[in-house]
Amino acid sequence: MIHKVVIANRGEIALRILRACKELGIKTVAVHSDVDSEALHVKLADQSVCIGPAPSSHSYLNMKAILSAAEVTDADAIHPGYGFLSENAEFAEICTNCGLTFIGPTAENMRLMGDKISARQTVTKAGVPILPGTKEAVTSVDEAICIAGEIGYPVIIKATAGGGGRGMKIVHSPASLPNAFAAARSEAQAGFGNPEVYIEKYCERPRHVEIQIMADKHGNVIHLGERDCSIQRRHQKLIEEAPCCVLTEDVRRKMGECAVAAARTVGYSSVGTIEFLLDADSNFYFMEMNTRVQVEHPVTEMVTGIDIIKEQILIAAGQPLRFKQEDIQIRGHAIECRINAEDPEKFTPSPGLINGYHTPGGLGVRVDSAVYDQYKVLPHYDSMIAKLIVHAETREEAIRRMDRALEEYIIEGIKTTIPFHQKIMNNKEFIEGQIDTGFLERIKLV
Amino acid sequence: MIHKVVIANRGEIALRILRACKELGIKTVAVHSDVDSEALHVKLADQSVCIGPAPSSHSYLNMKAILSAAEVTDADAIHPGYGFLSENAEFAEICTNCGLTFIGPTAENMRLMGDKISARQTVTKAGVPILPGTKEAVTSVDEAICIAGEIGYPVIIKATAGGGGRGMKIVHSPASLPNAFAAARSEAQAGFGNPEVYIEKYCERPRHVEIQIMADKHGNVIHLGERDCSIQRRHQKLIEEAPCCVLTEDVRRKMGECAVAAARTVGYSSVGTIEFLLDADSNFYFMEMNTRVQVEHPVTEMVTGIDIIKEQILIAAGQPLRFKQEDIQIRGHAIECRINAEDPEKFTPSPGLINGYHTPGGLGVRVDSAVYDQYKVLPHYDSMIAKLIVHAETREEAIRRMDRALEEYIIEGIKTTIPFHQKIMNNKEFIEGQIDTGFLERIKLV
Repeated sequence: MIHKVVIANRGEIALRILRACKELGIKTVAVHSDVDSEALHVKLADQSVCIGPAPSSHSYLNMKAILSAAEVTDADAIHPGYGFLSENAEFAEICTNCGLTFIGPTAENMRLMGDKISARQTVTKAGVPILPGTKEAVTSVDEAICIAGEIGYPVIIKATAGGGGRGMKIVHSPASLPNAFAAARSEAQAGFGNPEVYIEKYCERPRHVEIQIMADKHGNVIHLGERDCSIQRRHQKLIEEAPCCVLTEDVRRKMGECAVAAARTVGYSSVGTIEFLLDADSNFYFMEMNTRVQVEHPVTEMVTGIDIIKEQILIAAGQPLRFKQEDIQIRGHAIECRINAEDPEKFTPSPGLINGYHTPGGLGVRVDSAVYDQYKVLPHYDSMIAKLIVHAETREEAIRRMDRALEEYIIEGIKTTIPFHQKIMNNKEFIEGQIDTGFLERIKLV
Repeated sequence: MIHKVVIANRGEIALRILRACKELGIKTVAVHSDVDSEALHVKLADQSVCIGPAPSSHSYLNMKAILSAAEVTDADAIHPGYGFLSENAEFAEICTNCGLTFIGPTAENMRLMGDKISARQTVTKAGVPILPGTKEAVTSVDEAICIAGEIGYPVIIKATAGGGGRGMKIVHSPASLPNAFAAARSEAQAGFGNPEVYIEKYCERPRHVEIQIMADKHGNVIHLGERDCSIQRRHQKLIEEAPCCVLTEDVRRKMGECAVAAARTVGYSSVGTIEFLLDADSNFYFMEMNTRVQVEHPVTEMVTGIDIIKEQILIAAGQPLRFKQEDIQIRGHAIECRINAEDPEKFTPSPGLINGYHTPGGLGVRVDSAVYDQYKVLPHYDSMIAKLIVHAETREEAIRRMDRALEEYIIEGIKTTIPFHQKIMNNKEFIEGQIDTGFLERIKLV
């Protein structure tokens, strides 16, 4: 078993890991930058070590300093959290070579699944669907019609040199393809000085749906159902929920099986997430794999009752999974709002001193946060200061619970995104579950 | 449906009711004494009305003032919480006569089940076991042997005029009865000037186990499993848990059926609790019924996923139960610690200003409390300032989770019973589940 863990992270995830360790009877070492000495996880850890100045490259990304901290405190394991070194294969490798248990997948797992192209190739072999299309230039209308026919309409024509929507044409039938093809090429030429275009399946109003998986070192792989993370601003998730309200039992099962197959095909061990795009016709396509614990893991914990961080630690310690697939039951609905120290309209950072703090409570309300009254939110790091998670019997009840919990949450002295989340919880389309990755742009709230 | 509820209570239960109303879209009216104007539920309610000075008899027990508040705010229902007017049949009756929905059972239900003697008679007819014995004097050894034989050993001989343990003799077999009988009579004579004694079944190391029931106005009655409330100090519950770790499935089912039968026999509607004594041989005996929501209802909410207060409101509004008995599933284990503003060793009250407050968070942690930083705990009312509730997969994990949550809970400026609860969570006998109503006295912690 693991005896003492270095928590190589900060903020709420450092506290999350510390709590799991305490409940497992494992000692904890907090490592922190010089500006983080007042952090809550530092106060609550059994030991703490300052590993360098504020810039992450000098502290939270400083492998040598973290390994030294492990050595001087006689720790036998390292938990990297998310971000920072969590997906750094070299770091995982060095930890292992130093005789430390890296609480995460192997370096090999990370290398194979961390690169998007190799990951796509790998999962395709396991039978996992990827978004059909060609990344190479399509030069003639006839070729375009042929490819589009194979892919299935609607398709999207994109400039190979392009970006930002210029030169993109959505095509719904073969009849409209020739005109669209010509227009796309001429726009590409005008915009990028290169007329080349390629064709890809067009995903209308896609949802971001991901599957949480859990794999031990003995070949057992299970999934814990899905999360819908479609509420995003500039590819940053802001609200996540479980389950996804439009998934049928059949698609849920297939998606889960694909995720398990993807993990199994690389001999994955640890927790991880397989991200998919889900289109309006319930087709799903592999996007990428995250080989670490994710910010949004709590919604899965709420509906399954499983402590994902504890299981991750036990897996790293070599224990076989304590659950079989048939043990996993989804109960109720959970929603997470990421609360950032930002202006709720412009989303500009708002660091500074918190001079009034009161968290919501009561049934089905969970707060994962490392801030407190008189804590100074630092400008050096990510602006997320809290995750507010609710659990209720139905999605509708969860939304109402989140709304009342947001109302109770008091954070004074800095601006936060609480008012933004309150607007979403009262938005008709959100309440009706009509969400996709373009939702926030469409409703003009951001 | 109900539109606006007067919350005729204070403290955490007032906030609990307010939260349920908000989530149901029901408006709230807080009524409060003059010293309670800074209470959290007053700040969060849609409206508030001051109903009198600090002494409860002039405010929270002042029926006229509460009814006036309902009238001026145009409320259509009253929730009495627990304590105060919650088991006052006259108040329930007046509410109904005034056209207000009383969120609780009928006055008739209360009268029948509120009186211990009539409640015992009523449930006996429904086949619910009560502690066997005679409340009348037993005059001869032969009669005593005959009665003890009927009751079954062990029995206890008690002085009819007695109390406080004097004149009590525990008898394990007929052979030792004659001597014990004579000794009890002579001690009774010496102690109370009256030698009369009676005989009752002796319950060894009994647990206090209670069943939560839920009954609508359409004749549907279900139970939500049991709570073990054996950790008591001078008959005050301090820690409650669900489920009871020694109950077999068979006894659980029988106890549940008895509770449902008891509620059904009086045509009960609303939520309620049937309290039993459970002896070391898994025999259980009816003690009393509580015709209101209880302080410890959250542990049942955590393991069943059901919001008991919401259901209570919906029942009062005339809706049929939304669950059948077979829908009720117990998941995991929950523990509640009542945190009092008291010296943790002497249990003397410690009111005053809270000048530092931080609640624990993370997975499986729930805080039900109406206090906040700079809140003044008043000497006029009950000393309970918070309920800390945890939920985990197993009892062992729940105990560890409670221990770490207690460590995180910061309440400065006043003394609280947090250190007491930490001792219990680390007590070997408690961890092993060897608890009964004499536990606290036995381990000499209080």
